[in-house]
Amino acid sequence: MKTEQVAELYSQLQQSICRTLEIADGKGKFIENEWHREIGGGLTNVMQHGAIIEKAGVNFSYVRGKFTPTMERLLGEKADAYAVAGISSIIHAANPFVPTIHMNVRYFSLDSGVAWFGGGIDLTPTYINLAEARWFHESIKEICDSYGDSFYADWKAWADDYFYLPHRQETRGVGGIFFDRVKPETDDDFEMMLSLTADLANAYPVIYGKLMHDNASKEFTPEQKHWQKLRRGRYVEFNLIYDRGTRFGLESGGNTESILVSLPAEVEWAYNYHPAKGSPEFQTQELLKKGIDWVNFEGLKH
Amino acid sequence: MKTEQVAELYSQLQQSICRTLEIADGKGKFIENEWHREIGGGLTNVMQHGAIIEKAGVNFSYVRGKFTPTMERLLGEKADAYAVAGISSIIHAANPFVPTIHMNVRYFSLDSGVAWFGGGIDLTPTYINLAEARWFHESIKEICDSYGDSFYADWKAWADDYFYLPHRQETRGVGGIFFDRVKPETDDDFEMMLSLTADLANAYPVIYGKLMHDNASKEFTPEQKHWQKLRRGRYVEFNLIYDRGTRFGLESGGNTESILVSLPAEVEWAYNYHPAKGSPEFQTQELLKKGIDWVNFEGLKH
Repeated sequence: MKTEQVAELYSQLQQSICRTLEIADGKGKFIENEWHREIGGGLTNVMQHGAIIEKAGVNFSYVRGKFTPTMERLLGEKADAYAVAGISSIIHAANPFVPTIHMNVRYFSLDSGVAWFGGGIDLTPTYINLAEARWFHESIKEICDSYGDSFYADWKAWADDYFYLPHRQETRGVGGIFFDRVKPETDDDFEMMLSLTADLANAYPVIYGKLMHDNASKEFTPEQKHWQKLRRGRYVEFNLIYDRGTRFGLESGGNTESILVSLPAEVEWAYNYHPAKGSPEFQTQELLKKGIDWVNFEGLKH
Repeated sequence: MKTEQVAELYSQLQQSICRTLEIADGKGKFIENEWHREIGGGLTNVMQHGAIIEKAGVNFSYVRGKFTPTMERLLGEKADAYAVAGISSIIHAANPFVPTIHMNVRYFSLDSGVAWFGGGIDLTPTYINLAEARWFHESIKEICDSYGDSFYADWKAWADDYFYLPHRQETRGVGGIFFDRVKPETDDDFEMMLSLTADLANAYPVIYGKLMHDNASKEFTPEQKHWQKLRRGRYVEFNLIYDRGTRFGLESGGNTESILVSLPAEVEWAYNYHPAKGSPEFQTQELLKKGIDWVNFEGLKH
């Protein structure tokens, strides 16, 4: 019952996210692709070549199936069947001064009676703008704080650990929040988490709308575009090597095109690329670290 | 002792591969980057922006270390220490009619006394040319046949299974050969496999020289370049999600830049891209299947 309720709300939220993003972009439209499988189905909404948004995926899915040995291993739970409803979204803009953003909320339930919420939102700028990173974290913190005192601090630290590339010793961007296995113990808990995840999903296109509005008309050079494509390479590395949603989706027979719509349109890799010391690119790279308190951060002391 | 002998030969072969490729390219030069770690070291040779070769890595490494629980799990062997010497190379050309190629040979030995050879060579064209695919397989088969009757057939089938993207239900290209855990039981076996892997390494730049020579001056359109970048996206997916060498290297603390030099310079992803039925791109996609006997293949019957 609860999963149905979550699925219905998330499905509506998917639509409102898309409408808000279309208004903010002013030109691009989301194309809807419905898919059905034995395990369930979903609606993959994709915008390509908008005025500002180069590629965005806003996916809703509601899948149910046998709980396989692979899932048992990946999740450390025992059950016969599972159901999961979720929204997953990533937006890449053409202008290197408009960051890449990601948001995901989901409700996972097992026939054993165990169920949990998971999700997160995180920002990956090509060029880190301290005021913008602060504003982004403040916006997320405000939502978290209205539900509980420790949520932001706990989930912010979790995001630092999760959105991390060990082989580069770099965070993916300025982080945000990440949470998983938040198991509601009462109906009130369930309602609270459903409301919290809905608030995040509602805030997501509004936050991105402001980031688009503030940055999309900034001029940029071919070198700045090159740096953006190199940073997108890191995004691809994270998603294909580490991201649990991507790997779980591909391994469990999810819809490949829906899962990989997260990948940017144009990407570059260069061997041993190091930005010049002191350059804006260098400064951004210096800030790709865990543990920065973005709400109060005023820059690295050199 | 044996590992030292292999390392010395492979190190020489790395140099001769680079010299042959430089001559074939006519402009590009390999830059050498030596690296040292607690676990050993290597020499990463990289060419970028040659006349024909857009990006090539020819890596030699010789590493030794503690056999960790992760390796135990990944390799299914028990030991305290390991040593591995190998060459690993991938070449991406700018012209979409020059295929991408990969070659790898390695000798892995454990202090338990167990040791094996592994390696392979495979071709990934943007546009499959049947005569060229046949010639490539014939060239590899000739080397294999001079050592044993079943090598080519066995290792060709293994390549079909290994260079495969389950989430796309596509092979990476027209395959080639792949082998692993070939454990020499006698000194003669060891010498034979060392010689076979050296023959493959020697043939590699000669084969690629011909593919460059035959195709690099062909004219191409922006649409053909676009298709090449999309196919490179599949190459990235394979390397980051499935390739054992890449994952083992990143997990065991190898040199990140040396490992990921395999990634192409410019890559694209498009949602739900399907080439028009009957187009050359469509025909290539139709041929990305396991089990094609390339040496005798005359095209799909429609």
